[in-house]
Amino acid sequence: MDAAEFRRRGKEMVDLIADYLENIEQRPVYPDVEPGYLRSLIPEEAPEEPETYEDVVKDIERVIMPGVTHWHSPYFYAYFPTANSFPAMLADMLSGAIGCIGFSWAASPACTELETVMMDWLGKMLKLPEDFIAGTHGQGGGVIQGTASEATLVALLAARSRAVRMILASDPQRPETDITSKLVAYSSDQAHCSVERAGMIAGVRMKKIPTEQSDKYAVQGETLRRMIQEDKAAGLIPFYFCATLGTTPSCAFDHITELGPICNAEKIWMHIDAAYAGSSFICPEFRPLLNGIEFADSFNFNPHKWLLVNFDCSTMWVRKRSDLIGAFKMDPLYLKHDHQESGRYFDITFSCYSQSIRFRSLKMWFVFRMYGLKGLQDYIRKGSNEVNETLLKRINNGRKIHLVPCQLSGQFVLRFAVCARTTESRHIREAWRLITQLAEEVMQELPN
Amino acid sequence: MDAAEFRRRGKEMVDLIADYLENIEQRPVYPDVEPGYLRSLIPEEAPEEPETYEDVVKDIERVIMPGVTHWHSPYFYAYFPTANSFPAMLADMLSGAIGCIGFSWAASPACTELETVMMDWLGKMLKLPEDFIAGTHGQGGGVIQGTASEATLVALLAARSRAVRMILASDPQRPETDITSKLVAYSSDQAHCSVERAGMIAGVRMKKIPTEQSDKYAVQGETLRRMIQEDKAAGLIPFYFCATLGTTPSCAFDHITELGPICNAEKIWMHIDAAYAGSSFICPEFRPLLNGIEFADSFNFNPHKWLLVNFDCSTMWVRKRSDLIGAFKMDPLYLKHDHQESGRYFDITFSCYSQSIRFRSLKMWFVFRMYGLKGLQDYIRKGSNEVNETLLKRINNGRKIHLVPCQLSGQFVLRFAVCARTTESRHIREAWRLITQLAEEVMQELPN
Repeated sequence: MDAAEFRRRGKEMVDLIADYLENIEQRPVYPDVEPGYLRSLIPEEAPEEPETYEDVVKDIERVIMPGVTHWHSPYFYAYFPTANSFPAMLADMLSGAIGCIGFSWAASPACTELETVMMDWLGKMLKLPEDFIAGTHGQGGGVIQGTASEATLVALLAARSRAVRMILASDPQRPETDITSKLVAYSSDQAHCSVERAGMIAGVRMKKIPTEQSDKYAVQGETLRRMIQEDKAAGLIPFYFCATLGTTPSCAFDHITELGPICNAEKIWMHIDAAYAGSSFICPEFRPLLNGIEFADSFNFNPHKWLLVNFDCSTMWVRKRSDLIGAFKMDPLYLKHDHQESGRYFDITFSCYSQSIRFRSLKMWFVFRMYGLKGLQDYIRKGSNEVNETLLKRINNGRKIHLVPCQLSGQFVLRFAVCARTTESRHIREAWRLITQLAEEVMQELPN
Repeated sequence: MDAAEFRRRGKEMVDLIADYLENIEQRPVYPDVEPGYLRSLIPEEAPEEPETYEDVVKDIERVIMPGVTHWHSPYFYAYFPTANSFPAMLADMLSGAIGCIGFSWAASPACTELETVMMDWLGKMLKLPEDFIAGTHGQGGGVIQGTASEATLVALLAARSRAVRMILASDPQRPETDITSKLVAYSSDQAHCSVERAGMIAGVRMKKIPTEQSDKYAVQGETLRRMIQEDKAAGLIPFYFCATLGTTPSCAFDHITELGPICNAEKIWMHIDAAYAGSSFICPEFRPLLNGIEFADSFNFNPHKWLLVNFDCSTMWVRKRSDLIGAFKMDPLYLKHDHQESGRYFDITFSCYSQSIRFRSLKMWFVFRMYGLKGLQDYIRKGSNEVNETLLKRINNGRKIHLVPCQLSGQFVLRFAVCARTTESRHIREAWRLITQLAEEVMQELPN
C-alpha cells in the first residue's frame, strides 16, 4: 500500500469508525460466541501472497465484530469506563505516523517534553501541590504509564530501592537480601488485585489492612498504626503503603489525611491509587476527596478511564523524580545523550518499566485543548443546572407528581419531600419510576 | 467534536499523515532544539474554554515537529528501526475506535482470540516447534507484550515462580525468602540493559556471562556450564538464562544449540531474546539462526522493529501456558467469567504485567494479510536477484570497473576478484566507492 492508497483507505476507515460509533447501540453489547469461535473463521496460516484491502475490510464484520464486547455501547456497564473521544483518536493517528519511540529526550525531544508539560497541565487541573509539578522549583513531576498496575509496581520498586538505600546508609554491612526479606508493604483488603501482584513481582511481603463495612470499607489510621507497630516489633521493615481512592468493589476512599502523617513519620512511601475516581478531582466540588495528597510520595489515576483520553494513558506523579530514576537507572552507552542531566523532564527509560513508549501525550494535548477544562468538568458532571431544570419542568408538566427545586452550593437540586398524610411506599415507588423515566428521556436528548 | 466533524477532521488527518511520510526526507532527521524548548511555546495551563481543531492542528508544525526525531526518515540510522506501515496504521485506527480493554476473554473475545491465532500464524512463519503453537495438542502459545523488556521480565517471573514451586515440592518447609535469596539468573555480558533490570525488579541475583571478541561475543556452552557448577557448589540455585540472538552492540548470537541442552539438564528456564533480529527468521535462509529454539522455554522478538507492525507489538511464545499463568494469576470476582478455563487462549490478565491491553493483534492481521509472507520476506531481504542484476549491469555499463556474477544457493551474487598484478589498495577503495554509489542509486529507484 503506497501513500496514495493510504489516503483513500484512511478516509474510508474514518467513515467506518464514525459509522461504528454512531450506530453502536444497535449492536448487542455482549457477543454471543463460544471460545474458539474465531479460529474456524480464518485460515490456519498467513497468506503467502498479499491480499487486497477489500478482502481484509470485509472480514471486520464477518470475523471481528461478532466477537467484540462493545465497551462504548451506552448499554455497557461492566468493569469500568474506558475513554474514547474523537480528539484522542485523531491524536493517536498522528502519534502512529510520527511513530517515534520515546525512551529518552534525544530519541524525540517533543515526545519527552510534551509529556512533562501535559502532566503539569493535568496536575494543575487537579490542584496538586507544587512539589508534584515539574515546571516549578520542586523536585517532582509526572510521567505517563500504561496502566495503574504499572504505576503501582513502579512506585513499589522506587520505595523498595529508597528503603534499601536508607538502611544501607546507616548499616552498610547489612546484606541487601536480608533487608528485602524483612520489608513489608501494606494496602487495603479492598485494593485492586494488581497491588497484591506488585508485591509478588517485587518479591516483598504485602499485607492487607482489614476494613469494616461500618467504616464504608475505608482504611483507618488506627488500624495501619497498629499493624506497623506489630510488624516493627517483629523485626520487619514497613516501607510502602498503597492507599486507594475509590476501590473497585465499592468506591471506598481510604482516609489519607489520617494515613499520610503516619506514613511520613515512619518514612513509609505512600502511593495513592485513584485509577477510576481520580478524574473527578478536576471538579472543585470533588477535589476535597484528594485532600491528604500533600503527604503522598506518588499519585496515579487513569485519564484513559474517565477523562476522554483513549487507552493507554495512566498518569503518575512523584514528589521526587530522583526516587523513580534511582529505582531503574541503567547507563548503557547506546542510551547516553548530550542533554541527559539538563532539564526538568523525565527520560522515560528511567521512569517506566517498558523503556519504550509511544507519543502518548499528544492525546492529552488534543483532548485538553478541544474540551477545555470546563468541557472536561461538564463531562465528569454529565449534567448541569439546565438539565436539572428541564427535568423538573418535564416532571411538573406531566402533572402526575409535583415537586419544587432548591439551591445547594450553586447546584439546582430537585427536592423531594414526602408531604401528604396518605402517602404510602407504593406512591413513592411510582413517583421514582416516573422521575427515572423522565430523567432518561432528558439525558437521551442531550448532545454527546 | 461530533461524528460529523470527526469524518471531516479524520480525513484531513489522513492527508496530513500521508504528506508527512511522503516528504519526510526533507526534514532534518535530528531536531535542533535545546531541552525545555517546548514549554515556552505553549501556555502554562490547559485552556478553560475549548479551542478549535484548527488551533490545535496548526500547532503541530509550530510546537511538535521542531522537536521530533524523525524515526521514519531514510536518514535515521540510530538505535534500531521501528516499524511503520500503512496497513498497521489503519488497523490501529480501528483498534482505537473499538477501544476495548482486552484483559480477559470475556472483556472482548475477538481481542483475545485474534491475538492467539495471529501468534500462531507468526509462529508458523518462523517454523517454531509445535509446542509453541496454541492451536495444536501442545501446551504452549503466544501472547503480545509491549516491549522485549516486558517479555524478559515476564519470563523471569515465570521462571522464578516455577523454580520456587519445584523446590517447595521436595522441601515444603523451606521459607520462600530463603529460596529466592539463593536464586541466580544468567545472561551474556552483551545482553541489553533491560535484562539486568529485570533481575533488579524481581529482586534476584543476575550474573553476566563473559564473552570474547574471538568468539564474536557469543556466549559459549562451556562458560555457562562452568558458572553453573561454581554457583551450585556455593549453594546457589541457577534458574534462568536469557540468551540473546542479535545483541545490541554487535548482533552476536549466543550458541543456543549448545546452551539449550545445558539449561534443560539443569532445569534452568531458557528465554531467548531476539528482539531485533527475530523478524529475519521468517526467511528460510535466516531460519537456521533460530536452531536450538527446541530447547527454549520462552522466545520473544519485536515485529514492531522489523516486521512492519507499528509499535507496540512484542511477540512472546512459551512452551507451557500454565507457567506464565502460574506466575501472575489472581482471581478477583470482577475478573471471573463463564469461559475461564475452556479454551486454548490466554486470558491476557494472566500473561502480561499490565493487565489491560489494546486490541493489538489487529495490526498483525492487517499487515500479514496485506503483505503476505512473501511480501514480508521481501521486506526483510530488501533486495532481490533482479536488483542485484540491475546493479551489475549499471556497474559494467559504466566501464570504469568490471566484474562478473555468480550463483550461490539461488542468489545472484556480485563476484569481486582482485585480478591484475598492478592492483593497489587505492584501486580497490575507488572501486568500492563506485559500487556503493551505484547501489545507492539503484536502491533509491525502488518502490517502497
